[in-house]
Amino acid sequence: MAKLSELSASGLREELAALKKKYEALKAQGLKLDLSRGKPDGEQLDLSRPMLDSVNSKSDLIAADGSDCRNYGAPAGIPEARALMAEMLELRPEEVFAGGNSSLNLMHDCLGIAYLHGTPKSKTPWCKLPKVKFLCPSPGYDRHFSVTEHFGVEMITVPMTPQGPDMDVVEELVASDSAIKGMWCIPKYSNPTGITYSDTTVRRLAAMSPAAPDFLIFWDNAYAAHHLHPDSPDKLLGLVAELKKTGKAGMGLMFTSTSKVTFAGAGIAAMGASKENLDYFMKHWGLQTIGFDKLNQLRHARFFSDGYTIERHMRRHAELLRPKFEAVQEVFNRELGGLDIAWWTDPRGGYFISLDTLDGCAKRTLALCAEAGVVMTPAGATFPYGVDPRDRNIRVAPTFATLEEVRAAAELVCLCAKLAGVEKLLGGASEPRAR
Amino acid sequence: MAKLSELSASGLREELAALKKKYEALKAQGLKLDLSRGKPDGEQLDLSRPMLDSVNSKSDLIAADGSDCRNYGAPAGIPEARALMAEMLELRPEEVFAGGNSSLNLMHDCLGIAYLHGTPKSKTPWCKLPKVKFLCPSPGYDRHFSVTEHFGVEMITVPMTPQGPDMDVVEELVASDSAIKGMWCIPKYSNPTGITYSDTTVRRLAAMSPAAPDFLIFWDNAYAAHHLHPDSPDKLLGLVAELKKTGKAGMGLMFTSTSKVTFAGAGIAAMGASKENLDYFMKHWGLQTIGFDKLNQLRHARFFSDGYTIERHMRRHAELLRPKFEAVQEVFNRELGGLDIAWWTDPRGGYFISLDTLDGCAKRTLALCAEAGVVMTPAGATFPYGVDPRDRNIRVAPTFATLEEVRAAAELVCLCAKLAGVEKLLGGASEPRAR
Repeated sequence: MAKLSELSASGLREELAALKKKYEALKAQGLKLDLSRGKPDGEQLDLSRPMLDSVNSKSDLIAADGSDCRNYGAPAGIPEARALMAEMLELRPEEVFAGGNSSLNLMHDCLGIAYLHGTPKSKTPWCKLPKVKFLCPSPGYDRHFSVTEHFGVEMITVPMTPQGPDMDVVEELVASDSAIKGMWCIPKYSNPTGITYSDTTVRRLAAMSPAAPDFLIFWDNAYAAHHLHPDSPDKLLGLVAELKKTGKAGMGLMFTSTSKVTFAGAGIAAMGASKENLDYFMKHWGLQTIGFDKLNQLRHARFFSDGYTIERHMRRHAELLRPKFEAVQEVFNRELGGLDIAWWTDPRGGYFISLDTLDGCAKRTLALCAEAGVVMTPAGATFPYGVDPRDRNIRVAPTFATLEEVRAAAELVCLCAKLAGVEKLLGGASEPRAR
Repeated sequence: MAKLSELSASGLREELAALKKKYEALKAQGLKLDLSRGKPDGEQLDLSRPMLDSVNSKSDLIAADGSDCRNYGAPAGIPEARALMAEMLELRPEEVFAGGNSSLNLMHDCLGIAYLHGTPKSKTPWCKLPKVKFLCPSPGYDRHFSVTEHFGVEMITVPMTPQGPDMDVVEELVASDSAIKGMWCIPKYSNPTGITYSDTTVRRLAAMSPAAPDFLIFWDNAYAAHHLHPDSPDKLLGLVAELKKTGKAGMGLMFTSTSKVTFAGAGIAAMGASKENLDYFMKHWGLQTIGFDKLNQLRHARFFSDGYTIERHMRRHAELLRPKFEAVQEVFNRELGGLDIAWWTDPRGGYFISLDTLDGCAKRTLALCAEAGVVMTPAGATFPYGVDPRDRNIRVAPTFATLEEVRAAAELVCLCAKLAGVEKLLGGASEPRAR
């Protein structure tokens, strides 16, 4: 199809009229669809139903270290859970802490601990400092940004590239400003762009020389095993290994969870870090709780005997998810391809597709979607403070809805993006697009 | 038996020689016993084994509000879990938040939130204040004190009486010092004294007029249902109800958990509070996690259909625990009764017996115990900063060991307390006992 920007004004007006008619017709269907959150669907959750029997009233409930999983004890997690999560993080079991059901909670706690008590490399608890800043590669994960904002951290947006955060920007910022204490990363199948950090990006991150001696990379490897094409998965360089090479082992905290492997409400979360960091944060966790739920850790460890069983399990997830991602691509290609008013990612894993409209058109597109009954992640949510400076990014979350619903919603998103795009072109003054 | 203090010096020396001989004989047995922590034993944990089948691969996993317990959602907990925990807290379900596996973690988080963000009634986050103080009725729970110390709170010891904290002291302190922001309470079968706050104590607490407008009572009702005599249980006045009467609903946060109802590592915790407090703290929890483990909440709610089933279940705990508590009383009465060198509580519920030696004899008693192979909670642990000003309190935790072990350990504790007491009397200068 031709670029819409090459249409004449009258051509655009004709197009607008046609789109409006189509929109009113779709709106009249009274859709009620939700593509807003990265939730697994019922069929995916059913894959892990058998796990609920892996610990039952007849089970031996003693962990490998002899601790009774029903009782207090084993504050760092039971050995088999640490070993399992270590496989996901590509670390050794002793480098991993196995916690409760939420990796977001672990990240929040690490920030909280740094705020109230500092870190192994901090002279001062962060709450005593006049200013703390974090780098936020964007578009990124809204809940990372909410937690950061919550602590009063100043968030600095860093552009995302197909290879990861723009490292020229990152290196310059961290080297020059000692108030910059940390950085969010979703290094694999990133939320929402779906890209995986290149080897060069990981190596440059590991080689950074931050002005803040207590700078921490929050490495949220939430989609470590979440390939859509398991036979040719993206490969991610291990941050901890690279940090060891550069002698900066203390600069990274790695997180993952089984939230989108087993149950989004009842998985297990883990953190991997240097011995110094692990000891430090575990000491604090040991004060705030007597321990995390070891029966759920045991349930997981019994269900997945090793990394291979996780891989096999994730293949079944991929089989369920791939058609939905493909449907979105098919509709986007058909409806938006070549129009030069929208650009999107075609991720090889993870939970999201990232769609960019013409500048200034994301809010309008989503308002039109909402009016026609399709709820999407709010415009701006993928940026710090909920403000997308160019108002163009839309996060598409196709996992939870049915294939049919995904297709219907994608059609509507395309129609709305076109409508907003044509309106914008007719209004004139569309800034030249940088990308 | 006669009071040891009435023995002559030579009588004491004879007694000491006899005790030493007995001690060496016991020591030679090479005991290896642990009465240090309030853990349920294996038989108690077995009572809840069937709960592990109440949610299985064939179960309907949808909560009463329609939320899939395997997925994200229901950040305040599923309705049936809130209802269950509300029965334990004697509140309405909407007054209760159901969380993860640890009430200590909820208390820690409330303190953390107050420190970093303040409370509904705080002008300033507590970390920005020059000084924050907490009242710590003692002897009390060591983990409360560890958390408090961890935040840098100054802990003020308040004496415990058989009716609860000494309210004359409490009222005077909170009314006069606006740096006093909170107070720990274990109102029922208190850790370690086992007493239950009297109605007068609860009413005086609810009627306090603290100098700090954001003063909070941390009401840890950990042993709400943990009667040793279920037919004549202690009755505790509801703090929230009393606070409503005095118009100070926001002054209390109530906590409980099923850690010692079902599984100490894998129970569910809950908080009850005024709507304003609940909304406030839930907003913060909603930022730090997408939600707590709802499958474990469902597991509990299916296993306990109502308060009556909990009560019936707790009767079975009582049957297992009562013989152990009775054994300690029998040995203490036989070995220490009338000697006027030791005084202990005879609790009607909870997990502990509190033993007071002569002033200055707790450390010595426990050192002797340790030397003979019996580990007890460290002397001082029941006081802020781990320092018992009179060095006399010993927490006895008879739940985890077998009945035989409990009896053997109690015998040894008595012998060591007598040894330490006679040594002290021979050394002279025993201060007059206040109690």
